[in-house]
Amino acid sequence: MDNRFLISCVTAEKLYEKIKNLPIIDYHNHLSVDDINNVPYKDIYALWVKPDPYKHRAMRMCGVDEKYITGDATDIEKFQKWCETVPKLIGHPLSHWTKMELELLEIDDMPNLENAKDIYEKCNDYLVKHEFSLKSVIEKYNVEKLCPCVSIMDDLSMFNKDGVCVPSLRGDDIVNITINLTDINSLDEYEKMIITRLEQLKNKGCKFTDHALDDGFKYYLDDGKNKERFKRLLDNKASVEDKERLSSYILKFLAKKYSQMGFVMQIHIGAQRYTSTNLREVAGAAGGFATIGNSVDVISLTTFLDDVDKSTGLPKTILFTLNPADNALISTLSGSYSKNGVSGLVTQGPAWWWDDHKLGIEKMLENNSVYGLLWNFIGMTTDSRSILSFVRHEYFRRILCSYLGDSFEKGEYICSFDELLKLAENMCYYNAKNIVGGIK
Amino acid sequence: MDNRFLISCVTAEKLYEKIKNLPIIDYHNHLSVDDINNVPYKDIYALWVKPDPYKHRAMRMCGVDEKYITGDATDIEKFQKWCETVPKLIGHPLSHWTKMELELLEIDDMPNLENAKDIYEKCNDYLVKHEFSLKSVIEKYNVEKLCPCVSIMDDLSMFNKDGVCVPSLRGDDIVNITINLTDINSLDEYEKMIITRLEQLKNKGCKFTDHALDDGFKYYLDDGKNKERFKRLLDNKASVEDKERLSSYILKFLAKKYSQMGFVMQIHIGAQRYTSTNLREVAGAAGGFATIGNSVDVISLTTFLDDVDKSTGLPKTILFTLNPADNALISTLSGSYSKNGVSGLVTQGPAWWWDDHKLGIEKMLENNSVYGLLWNFIGMTTDSRSILSFVRHEYFRRILCSYLGDSFEKGEYICSFDELLKLAENMCYYNAKNIVGGIK
Amino acid sequence: MDNRFLISCVTAEKLYEKIKNLPIIDYHNHLSVDDINNVPYKDIYALWVKPDPYKHRAMRMCGVDEKYITGDATDIEKFQKWCETVPKLIGHPLSHWTKMELELLEIDDMPNLENAKDIYEKCNDYLVKHEFSLKSVIEKYNVEKLCPCVSIMDDLSMFNKDGVCVPSLRGDDIVNITINLTDINSLDEYEKMIITRLEQLKNKGCKFTDHALDDGFKYYLDDGKNKERFKRLLDNKASVEDKERLSSYILKFLAKKYSQMGFVMQIHIGAQRYTSTNLREVAGAAGGFATIGNSVDVISLTTFLDDVDKSTGLPKTILFTLNPADNALISTLSGSYSKNGVSGLVTQGPAWWWDDHKLGIEKMLENNSVYGLLWNFIGMTTDSRSILSFVRHEYFRRILCSYLGDSFEKGEYICSFDELLKLAENMCYYNAKNIVGGIK
Repeated sequence: MDNRFLISCVTAEKLYEKIKNLPIIDYHNHLSVDDINNVPYKDIYALWVKPDPYKHRAMRMCGVDEKYITGDATDIEKFQKWCETVPKLIGHPLSHWTKMELELLEIDDMPNLENAKDIYEKCNDYLVKHEFSLKSVIEKYNVEKLCPCVSIMDDLSMFNKDGVCVPSLRGDDIVNITINLTDINSLDEYEKMIITRLEQLKNKGCKFTDHALDDGFKYYLDDGKNKERFKRLLDNKASVEDKERLSSYILKFLAKKYSQMGFVMQIHIGAQRYTSTNLREVAGAAGGFATIGNSVDVISLTTFLDDVDKSTGLPKTILFTLNPADNALISTLSGSYSKNGVSGLVTQGPAWWWDDHKLGIEKMLENNSVYGLLWNFIGMTTDSRSILSFVRHEYFRRILCSYLGDSFEKGEYICSFDELLKLAENMCYYNAKNIVGGIK
Repeated sequence: MDNRFLISCVTAEKLYEKIKNLPIIDYHNHLSVDDINNVPYKDIYALWVKPDPYKHRAMRMCGVDEKYITGDATDIEKFQKWCETVPKLIGHPLSHWTKMELELLEIDDMPNLENAKDIYEKCNDYLVKHEFSLKSVIEKYNVEKLCPCVSIMDDLSMFNKDGVCVPSLRGDDIVNITINLTDINSLDEYEKMIITRLEQLKNKGCKFTDHALDDGFKYYLDDGKNKERFKRLLDNKASVEDKERLSSYILKFLAKKYSQMGFVMQIHIGAQRYTSTNLREVAGAAGGFATIGNSVDVISLTTFLDDVDKSTGLPKTILFTLNPADNALISTLSGSYSKNGVSGLVTQGPAWWWDDHKLGIEKMLENNSVYGLLWNFIGMTTDSRSILSFVRHEYFRRILCSYLGDSFEKGEYICSFDELLKLAENMCYYNAKNIVGGIK
Repeated sequence: MDNRFLISCVTAEKLYEKIKNLPIIDYHNHLSVDDINNVPYKDIYALWVKPDPYKHRAMRMCGVDEKYITGDATDIEKFQKWCETVPKLIGHPLSHWTKMELELLEIDDMPNLENAKDIYEKCNDYLVKHEFSLKSVIEKYNVEKLCPCVSIMDDLSMFNKDGVCVPSLRGDDIVNITINLTDINSLDEYEKMIITRLEQLKNKGCKFTDHALDDGFKYYLDDGKNKERFKRLLDNKASVEDKERLSSYILKFLAKKYSQMGFVMQIHIGAQRYTSTNLREVAGAAGGFATIGNSVDVISLTTFLDDVDKSTGLPKTILFTLNPADNALISTLSGSYSKNGVSGLVTQGPAWWWDDHKLGIEKMLENNSVYGLLWNFIGMTTDSRSILSFVRHEYFRRILCSYLGDSFEKGEYICSFDELLKLAENMCYYNAKNIVGGIK
């Protein structure tokens, strides 16, 4: 990797040199059971292209026939189509990620139609030769802790065998009550089941939870009628409003438990996942065609946070916004709730999903700096399905060092280089480490 | 023109030298029948100030009496008031456009109160001496294709005499059903009439259509009752909801036809045209007082696009947002719909109307680059009522080259200069040419 | 003060040298009666930390126990906790303000846990020795006019003794009808009372008024039923809609009076003041926990402005947006209303509250420049409760000069340095002076 890639100035370079080897805590991702079991990869298509909705999306934007994306073309044909797409991605984050991900496999050339087969073979040789798996990446990138999402009912047996890989909870199916309700006869029983599972998660080292508040999210205060609503739901008689009110109730129930159990609550705000019905059918719900929704309803969001705050106090809460127009609004909420002794009770999370690129990261940082507080920033996480995405921690760290270095050199930061370095270290590692705890 | 005007770096300069002489395709503007007939201009006020709502707006902001804008003052008095306003426009795009437009007439000085009469006379001399008309501008700027808007019922006889000037369709009066309905007795007849006219437009070389989705746009799925609604409309008994539902129905009907006929659908989103009733009365509906509306309703927009996509597939669609807070949201939609073999099925259009300036263009480019894809950018268009506005293609190209050059020099673009040049050429000319077709 | 602090280039430096000694007109702030009476400060905690919700907010974000913010700890303990917080504020505006405010008291070191006691004592010595009061600041900063807010029923006797300190009107309690209604028996009487008080304010030199249109603002056109509504209000029988419609009616009534009396109407848009109930209880309504609300409802805002415009013509109107995503939208409204002979009838006000920092000021300037017009910018105001906040005029001027200087050096401003200087002078002083009138 070119040492100066995305590095803007001398201070940035000095800073990056100092922090680049800090361990990584990837507190939210979507790695698969196969990855967690360290099943080695032998095929670059299966590792790099097949599971990556970002790449599928870019190929569609460039007019590639769906046959070569999710269809019945051969792996090598699909790989070639991806490589043919890459030269069109000037200025797009996939161009940066492609460069960085391939360098992890010791490929220096950018792919194109001509070198596609050659890269395919070289990569596969590399994978086999190095028995490339999650373990390879953990070693290469000094990953101290990683927290793949699980659903509430998932098997946890493969987690926390060595203290590195612990589960995090994706709670949307609990809130939307789309999990299997066999043996559940009441809201009380539902709550008991949840508590049991949360304790199992805690025993496995879980510290992070996650909820999506998509475009359209409304929060309802409890009107005392949710036990009846849950019964109607079990009888398939619940109205849309019943479901929405139950979701608000359960969201609050969970947030209270998180507060009591010392869990962190991540809230991912503002996705609009319903766009093309055609693509949903061919590519599945997470097929890369989602878009950015309208601005969050601030009144619903603040009412939810206050409702929990009044009850048990808020758990440590990380707010992620997909709509970058909401960066200032979300950062400012950092100052709207507090808990004695807790630094960063509410913070803005890193630039996420469609915002995870130089522009998005810079906008998040510059807003977080003045509307929120950089000091409390919880750190980067990949939120990815691919083990190659750990390069994005390096990506983030380079952009962060350039941002901090530029501000420092312009005289906007009233501090010494050592104080600046301490800030960068906290933002890259120690703030997250304070949550996951332990020494490696 | 100062060769370095708005040029930021060496790469930008090299790039601009290479692309500055590419032909222009102005695929959306509001030129008048007089312009299309190449009627020469003899009077700088009539050419430059009278038809330009941007200038009227700036004069009002500076407190100029309406008498000197749309009132009964003489032309030279009005011209003087405009010139008196110019020195107050530091930092405003009208300052840039004034400089560029006057240089087209070989005037190097910026106007002010003192030199107003002198500029007036020099310009008029120039116009007469050069028989200045649309033809002059077409030659000067190497305009290959220009597409003035017409309404569905307009006379098309002056179009496409030499392959340069072809009509584009402004469809708002079809969707809002504000056209003459004599001889139309049903929704079926309305649809037949539309199809007939669309075919006439196609025969005249039309490739582009356009719809405004102003602040407040809601999309309704077809409930099967629109034939009855249309009848009620003919009987003057349609409710507000009837009209809104009919508009959704017809918008979809048109989009399907565009898809079948190979037309491009432009969608201009987010204007709020109702502000000052007083100004609407004195200056007309397009008098320069419109403003930026609220963020688009993403659910209505995605539902509309999906509804067409499920039916006939989307036509090639260009989304323009007036509210720059929606840049990321609109760019991201580029990846939400696809058609096999079509690169850039949905793209974000150039910065438009109140966004057509250095800041607006840069914000559009930087968002489009990371949320959408620069490679598919369809190119600049003036959207203007004035033949002098063709300078804005030069304006756009200078800003584009600076944006691309800066990114390249910072090492953010992983490509060679020749690949960068190819990108710039596509964005300035070839992507639009691929649609309008033909060789000059 | 470091002469180069926040100064970006040579032109910025030259510009700042020329404008830094211009008088200050602080046309909107929240200074207290004690300040206005020039009661000297003896205690740095009481002057600097106790009344400043920004500092309280930052301390909460850093986990400081409420005991040390609004609780029963001693002043010196609270002062120490604030100093301990400062080193964590790298990148936050409080870091800049802290530096500038302390330099006013001849302290050059940034506070931290170690030097807290030392700074406490040095500051107190300075205050006593210099009999530090509002008068000290007025002299130091050459404050020509300052306009603390009053409520409609407040005592005005301490104002305008020497032409410097005149009242401005905060009208929210009039619009929300939360003032004492003893002796008011009808809407007519309410209006008469208001007119009487407005005339008293005018006699005291009042020129500026202010209204908050918080998140959720809706405007209703008059339906002719507000006299009855007011009666119901007096009888405690008014519905929520009654109150909202009455508020719209009274807002319009006031705006018309402002227009007739030559008052300026400030509109502060987009706060969301209801977040943490807990903090509201311990810290009061203005305790630093408010956040940024959703985007303004453009239709309500334009309908209100048009309603007044059609009636009496608009008063000079300054629009402040708290949500920076609305900068373009708010600036653009500058061109949507006009009055013969009035330059800047509607303008965007300076970056305000959570936006009052380098990023917020730059965003306001760059949007105002292209969507509005810098020429008409009304100038900075502190909107603060602390006499030390007058440093923010210097802060603003430094950032402004850098912004203008950079644009000039890049060749984006087609003007001479003298013309640039004139623009800067108008923006810092003369545009506001044209409103408050008089020679010092």
